[in-house]
Amino acid sequence: MSDVDLAVQYAREHQTDFLDEYKDLLRIPSISTLPEHAQDMRRAAEWITAELERLGFNPVEIMPTAGHPIVYGERLKAGANAPTILLYGHYDVQPVDPLEEWKSPPFEPEVRGDNLYARGASDMKGQLVGFLKALESIIRTSEVKLNLKAMIEGEEEVGSANLEDFIAGHKDLLRCDLSLNADTSILAPDTPALTYALRGLAYYEIRLQGPAGDLHSGTYGGIIENPATVLCRLIGGMHNEEGRVTLPGFYDRVLPLSAAERAELAKLPQTDAWWIEKAKVGSLRSGEPGYTATERATARPTLDVNGLLSGFTSVGSKTVLPARAMAKISMRLVPDQIPDEIAQALRTYLDDNVPETVRWEIEDLSDCYPAMLSLDSDAARAAGAALEEVWGKSPLFKREGGSVPVVGLIKEMIGVPTLMLGFGLPDDNLHAPNEKQNLPTFFRGIETYIRLLDKLGARGQRPGST
Amino acid sequence: MSDVDLAVQYAREHQTDFLDEYKDLLRIPSISTLPEHAQDMRRAAEWITAELERLGFNPVEIMPTAGHPIVYGERLKAGANAPTILLYGHYDVQPVDPLEEWKSPPFEPEVRGDNLYARGASDMKGQLVGFLKALESIIRTSEVKLNLKAMIEGEEEVGSANLEDFIAGHKDLLRCDLSLNADTSILAPDTPALTYALRGLAYYEIRLQGPAGDLHSGTYGGIIENPATVLCRLIGGMHNEEGRVTLPGFYDRVLPLSAAERAELAKLPQTDAWWIEKAKVGSLRSGEPGYTATERATARPTLDVNGLLSGFTSVGSKTVLPARAMAKISMRLVPDQIPDEIAQALRTYLDDNVPETVRWEIEDLSDCYPAMLSLDSDAARAAGAALEEVWGKSPLFKREGGSVPVVGLIKEMIGVPTLMLGFGLPDDNLHAPNEKQNLPTFFRGIETYIRLLDKLGARGQRPGST
Repeated sequence: MSDVDLAVQYAREHQTDFLDEYKDLLRIPSISTLPEHAQDMRRAAEWITAELERLGFNPVEIMPTAGHPIVYGERLKAGANAPTILLYGHYDVQPVDPLEEWKSPPFEPEVRGDNLYARGASDMKGQLVGFLKALESIIRTSEVKLNLKAMIEGEEEVGSANLEDFIAGHKDLLRCDLSLNADTSILAPDTPALTYALRGLAYYEIRLQGPAGDLHSGTYGGIIENPATVLCRLIGGMHNEEGRVTLPGFYDRVLPLSAAERAELAKLPQTDAWWIEKAKVGSLRSGEPGYTATERATARPTLDVNGLLSGFTSVGSKTVLPARAMAKISMRLVPDQIPDEIAQALRTYLDDNVPETVRWEIEDLSDCYPAMLSLDSDAARAAGAALEEVWGKSPLFKREGGSVPVVGLIKEMIGVPTLMLGFGLPDDNLHAPNEKQNLPTFFRGIETYIRLLDKLGARGQRPGST
Repeated sequence: MSDVDLAVQYAREHQTDFLDEYKDLLRIPSISTLPEHAQDMRRAAEWITAELERLGFNPVEIMPTAGHPIVYGERLKAGANAPTILLYGHYDVQPVDPLEEWKSPPFEPEVRGDNLYARGASDMKGQLVGFLKALESIIRTSEVKLNLKAMIEGEEEVGSANLEDFIAGHKDLLRCDLSLNADTSILAPDTPALTYALRGLAYYEIRLQGPAGDLHSGTYGGIIENPATVLCRLIGGMHNEEGRVTLPGFYDRVLPLSAAERAELAKLPQTDAWWIEKAKVGSLRSGEPGYTATERATARPTLDVNGLLSGFTSVGSKTVLPARAMAKISMRLVPDQIPDEIAQALRTYLDDNVPETVRWEIEDLSDCYPAMLSLDSDAARAAGAALEEVWGKSPLFKREGGSVPVVGLIKEMIGVPTLMLGFGLPDDNLHAPNEKQNLPTFFRGIETYIRLLDKLGARGQRPGST
């Protein structure tokens, strides 16, 4: 038997043990947003710590942050030439209200049919345990040919407010060749899938100031610049008639979609009708010509107004020429766009187009690097092959239109791509009552991780590069 | 002595009496907005009624409205061929707080230097008494060669909410050849002036609906129409690069400025620097080419955004693709634009430019006809000549950028222009502590009204026509 077969055999023989340990973790109500669960948060971190230590991570530390601590551990036994993988996960869960809608208590895990019900079963204690049990299966039967680091935070469900500082402060410690984020899902129990790209974000508030105070629109209309009118004209000019963004240089770094990638995306069930139904709209907007809806929603950059405020907005009329106008606008970025360059493009656009009669400022409210694991990379190939071996069919490769901040942070600060591979399902009731994990998918996930780790170790090279 | 000289002589001999009666009216605290002054409102209406009856108006009635009553009277002694003038005024005043800032009690009129201090002294009991005392001066010495109607309301300081219904319900009763509105001012004690045109108003709320509910801008940005972006594009397109309004047919009815009128406007002290100082801005906006700032602010129509609201407007960022976007926009109209036609122009613009992915509606929040008394009309010539005879210098002829609803209503419903001639001053502290009326100007006003009424009667034709 090959090493992989031995590990898979171990995993199959220990499913009951795995499930018991998984339930142990689920019994800890590690709700990060509720102060009364601070002790439970600590217990969950200690559970993870003990598990990592049992798997040969050394050292493992519960490292403080301004909020809940981060469990960091490393297992660097494969030698300096072996690739290093950084596992990202989180041990916190969402609150459980409305409690009365749960069929079984959220922290008393219960198997019903194919599913295990509990808060955190899918998001993401199940994925975390799945990966660790894959590791155990390998270690108990052969050896992992990779160096491993683990960074398991306790604030994902409350916005990961302290993660950026942690990563920025520990860039050397976290250095790796590839990040693995298990906090994700496949499309259906029989539809393995891999999200290989996320859009980034560049979110700004634009503030225009015209006159020092509001003026009477009758007295001054026609001669005093109206910052609300100017704001609308500016935003109106941010797209051309084709729906392309006009900020200077906006598309310069956008990676074109290859024919191979477009062929993969075309296999997804995301037709126009699918998007229309999902968004509950009558029709899609016309957009950049030459791209499908899925490509426009996931692989092309966009610009949206998120908020507008100026002047008088209550019921009725007030003949005011407002002194100020504000817009929140955000761009979804795609590889290899860089948030700082986008901010500069916006500044240049405003410099060029705001009339002298109006003062402007922008505030950078939020940004996130786009991220992509190339379909040609060893990691994507290894994950695709592992999924295919376990499921007996090719996985779908998809991109997401939204952003996952930690993936963007790791790209920005550590410079490596992230393989997003977890085994939740779209109907897992995340953040809702009766959260569940599909158990056949959980066990297939363990086997997929076993095969993935084997393939990545076998290649012995930087798995994120192409 | 001529009839006019006799009347002027009477007026000069009775200045003390006039002042006493003026003070009598000022002592009535007719504050329309405060319920505890309802009896005082009634007393003021009765004071006006008695005065009109004393001057030969018959009948005079205190006519009920849903709010404070309107005093209506008529004096139709000049025969069917004589022109009929409708006097508009109001007997209510503003509240007095902060009371401690008044140097003398607001309802105990006090002369200090050239001024009479009291709430309502200038706005507008002084103007009302001035006109009535001019009438008295004529009647006691000869006869008025005009038919007169008077409509004196009690809700001007609270928005004239019931005036439109009153006028609409009494169009025949109010029929006249010219309206005289005394609720206005000249530029300085030594600068007689006549406001001969007001801009109208067409004020709308535009509401756009995109998706049924707010969506995630990451998931849907690029394929779902963003109503805030659409709203900005729509508003951005409402002006062309020259600053002209693009709504279809917007300028079709705009009366061009004649060379004579432009020459009059050029005499005003309203240079660019004057406007900049008054609005407290650094510079004026570029606007319709070929017009001075004063012309653009008073004689050209404009479009302004008065309010904008969409999506997330609190501190920070929220990645929302908003379901709705709202703008309040208003146009200032000039003769002979018609509010209903402007509403239709806006609807046509929206019909032509809103994409199918967005539903729109507009609500007509407020409108007002523009109004102009042609400088070539008998009434404008008579008023100009009367002012020149009293002051010994030509008056300035000016237009106002704002709207006076009653003037628009009378234009719309009775079909006649309004001569705006009153003798307040810009520094009269209207609506503020220490309101005052300059008494030399008050007495000159009486003489001006005497001369005006004489000239209008002598011509014996429709004084508003050209």
